[in-house]
Amino acid sequence: MFIRNNWYVAAFDDEFGGAPVARTICGEEVVLYRKTDGQVVAMHDGCPHRLVPLSMGMIEGDNIRCKYHGMLFDGEGRCLQAPGKDASLGLRVSKVYETVERYGMIWVWIGEEAADPAKLPDLPWLASTEWAQTREHFTLACDHRFVIDNLMDLTHETYVHPETIGQNELMEAPVAARREADAAILERFMPDIDPPPYWAQMLGKPGRVDRWQVCRFILPSTVLIDSGVALVGTGGFAGDRAEGVTGYVINLITPATERSCYYFLVQARDFARDADAATQARFNATMRALVQQDIDVLEAQQRYVDAHPDAKLRALNIDAGATHARLMMNRALAAGAPAPAG
Amino acid sequence: MFIRNNWYVAAFDDEFGGAPVARTICGEEVVLYRKTDGQVVAMHDGCPHRLVPLSMGMIEGDNIRCKYHGMLFDGEGRCLQAPGKDASLGLRVSKVYETVERYGMIWVWIGEEAADPAKLPDLPWLASTEWAQTREHFTLACDHRFVIDNLMDLTHETYVHPETIGQNELMEAPVAARREADAAILERFMPDIDPPPYWAQMLGKPGRVDRWQVCRFILPSTVLIDSGVALVGTGGFAGDRAEGVTGYVINLITPATERSCYYFLVQARDFARDADAATQARFNATMRALVQQDIDVLEAQQRYVDAHPDAKLRALNIDAGATHARLMMNRALAAGAPAPAG
Amino acid sequence: MFIRNNWYVAAFDDEFGGAPVARTICGEEVVLYRKTDGQVVAMHDGCPHRLVPLSMGMIEGDNIRCKYHGMLFDGEGRCLQAPGKDASLGLRVSKVYETVERYGMIWVWIGEEAADPAKLPDLPWLASTEWAQTREHFTLACDHRFVIDNLMDLTHETYVHPETIGQNELMEAPVAARREADAAILERFMPDIDPPPYWAQMLGKPGRVDRWQVCRFILPSTVLIDSGVALVGTGGFAGDRAEGVTGYVINLITPATERSCYYFLVQARDFARDADAATQARFNATMRALVQQDIDVLEAQQRYVDAHPDAKLRALNIDAGATHARLMMNRALAAGAPAPAG
Repeated sequence: MFIRNNWYVAAFDDEFGGAPVARTICGEEVVLYRKTDGQVVAMHDGCPHRLVPLSMGMIEGDNIRCKYHGMLFDGEGRCLQAPGKDASLGLRVSKVYETVERYGMIWVWIGEEAADPAKLPDLPWLASTEWAQTREHFTLACDHRFVIDNLMDLTHETYVHPETIGQNELMEAPVAARREADAAILERFMPDIDPPPYWAQMLGKPGRVDRWQVCRFILPSTVLIDSGVALVGTGGFAGDRAEGVTGYVINLITPATERSCYYFLVQARDFARDADAATQARFNATMRALVQQDIDVLEAQQRYVDAHPDAKLRALNIDAGATHARLMMNRALAAGAPAPAG
Repeated sequence: MFIRNNWYVAAFDDEFGGAPVARTICGEEVVLYRKTDGQVVAMHDGCPHRLVPLSMGMIEGDNIRCKYHGMLFDGEGRCLQAPGKDASLGLRVSKVYETVERYGMIWVWIGEEAADPAKLPDLPWLASTEWAQTREHFTLACDHRFVIDNLMDLTHETYVHPETIGQNELMEAPVAARREADAAILERFMPDIDPPPYWAQMLGKPGRVDRWQVCRFILPSTVLIDSGVALVGTGGFAGDRAEGVTGYVINLITPATERSCYYFLVQARDFARDADAATQARFNATMRALVQQDIDVLEAQQRYVDAHPDAKLRALNIDAGATHARLMMNRALAAGAPAPAG
Repeated sequence: MFIRNNWYVAAFDDEFGGAPVARTICGEEVVLYRKTDGQVVAMHDGCPHRLVPLSMGMIEGDNIRCKYHGMLFDGEGRCLQAPGKDASLGLRVSKVYETVERYGMIWVWIGEEAADPAKLPDLPWLASTEWAQTREHFTLACDHRFVIDNLMDLTHETYVHPETIGQNELMEAPVAARREADAAILERFMPDIDPPPYWAQMLGKPGRVDRWQVCRFILPSTVLIDSGVALVGTGGFAGDRAEGVTGYVINLITPATERSCYYFLVQARDFARDADAATQARFNATMRALVQQDIDVLEAQQRYVDAHPDAKLRALNIDAGATHARLMMNRALAAGAPAPAG
């Protein structure tokens, strides 16, 4: 069960080299390729002739050709060419998806209703030259909701990421959860503490800091996190970041199957904006290492749940944000489900 | 469901070194070994004592000994020796298969009826010194019928084998399908074309050619292909190969399980008959590389079908030969099925 | 189905370095760690908070901390610390196991009844300085009863271990099986034979020998084997080992799942008691190589049984000890099963 009639990220914009891209989104196999006008096509990843994935095929101009018998399809899934000078029998790729390219990502509309551009999230940090970016994406062997739980409770940084962003104060600082119309929010403010190693280095000046984490879940599966540190008492909590550094972390989780997902992660930063290539490469390496630590835990969690299908997740206060997010997801699923017969 | 009461190829004749050979044929595990008189024994691959595969065991003269406790069985499956000076309790290998060695291959009879030598296919190209051979065998993770489909429609060469035997003319040339009493046939004649790289090299002389492909399916799962090129207008289509080169391709596909099979492939050729070892090694390498291209497609097709069990293969004109072959197989299966009760 | 209300070996005593140990015993996932007082804790391997295995976590003094959110549990499974200065909601690890450390091993009580120290087997060879030890443990992808069958019938040494302890006389020597109150016993005495390579080397003097093997199965899954050789006629069979060498082999098999198990193996020896490190390393290497030969057969047996669920193991005279052991196990299972309703 996935929340349909929504946009999901299928790929970053720089993944479209010479070969088609294959993804499974909400259980549907999708092949993507970029046309000569730049638009990205997304279609069912199966040739209607002999059932070979089109993602094994070749891009030819605006069209894609099946590797097996050379059936050529345009971006609407129509067969332009079939072997044997044959009529193609009206064969057509079974499904074509709406796509939008925005914020450096390709978004695919999954659902029966008409694609609604208004449902794209607003991610201004990714549309502004004020922010530099580090981005990576990952494929995880776990329920995509485990990733959301993880991001809506950053307490886990203490023990999952102890060398970089973890610190004991995360265990002790109170959290506050709240709901807005379209979001579940979890906030944690840690005044007057020593920064953890990662933030100390990014800040680049000595001294005690105020540290904040504001996590915002929006449907269907996005978590936006305002995180950072500022020298103590300089107004960081209120939004004055003149004496601080902010990493605005955009987390876009695309369910693949019930037990797997893609995780598209962008950190927008207001520091080191002119990082040279070597520095940027280090930022990416750090991001990959950090997320791998999460993946180790999340995939273990999935294995446990698979072995104990009746086991229940329990929620402490720290999980209040995740609990709100799960409720929002459950309501969206129920709203999207067919009405009961009768 | 497999077509029973037929011969299937289990192995090439040179696979019988010091160790037994294990194969699964039509879902039945079979161990094979060669006796001192040269005859190949085929039996159920399980020791009746403690259920360890006999193929882990040792060949001793005309007999095979189980690796676990040393039970010794003769080629009829009778226990000749058991540990403990024990009577062997009349333990016997549960099934012994008829075998025939012909055309450089070991054929095993699968079925309940008496083995019928008349059901062996006639493969004169493999019994004549007029033809040289290149042969290889492969294990594929796909339904054996996908291999037959592939061979009964060589249009796929254009895009699956573009560097060697593929050419655009394959996409355009008309095909003709027909049935004979015991065969489904698909023919394609391409007059006055430039030969593709493989055939240009094999022909060894410049000029336009006539190219032909005549594919013949016979039960249970054999495809015989007369293929080649001759200088244009020299009678190649009619069978005069004096100015041409012919590769007679014998394809023997043995189902292992519903989703796996063995593919025994021999190309008999009337050219380069005195190839030295290095040249012959190149022929074998080319054959392996070509078939690997097919395997990539066929195993992807199987994965698609596994994920979409209700999806249907669609047939264009080019598939008429495969469609006939499938009909022949379906009828043979229905004829071999037990009569409905009642 | 496993025999419950018994002790099973979970680990050797030297496996407790800095990290927790994860085992599955009779289908139950268990995490083990050693407290500061030396006692080994065994608990259910799952954090009750977010269902991540505790074996991914960190040992802190007498407690274990979950890797994910830092929940800290004591050796009774009580939560000592939870993030967010939160009450821990009374979360508790769902199960704590009784453990005993004896004979260099950690034993875990599996079952509902009170742990009964009297049910630990008596293994005096492991508690005496008269005996030196070689020990190894293994994880096998097979039913644990196949290991017991294997050990209760050493005829298999002839063909599974021909380079070391196998010899043809094993195939021919009669065996005698008998039952005692708590044990199934299989004996084989081979007077006046040439020793096989392993025993010849261990004995270290030339000459014909008497060779013995006395295998004793006790519940739930232990096989004790008195094996060795003595110069012919010097009383080895009667227990006089002055002119011989004895390897007392303690085999402790712990079921993990229906299709996997751990095998803890100790050979207590009355020879080479002062072996230097290099010699001892050779003994361990020989043990690993020998057991790998068994594993190859036993896992193949499991694959056969998986493919043929209705196939039955057949028992020859040599299997009489294994047959008795299986009967004892079946009775223990039936006795432990809930009474039928009605």
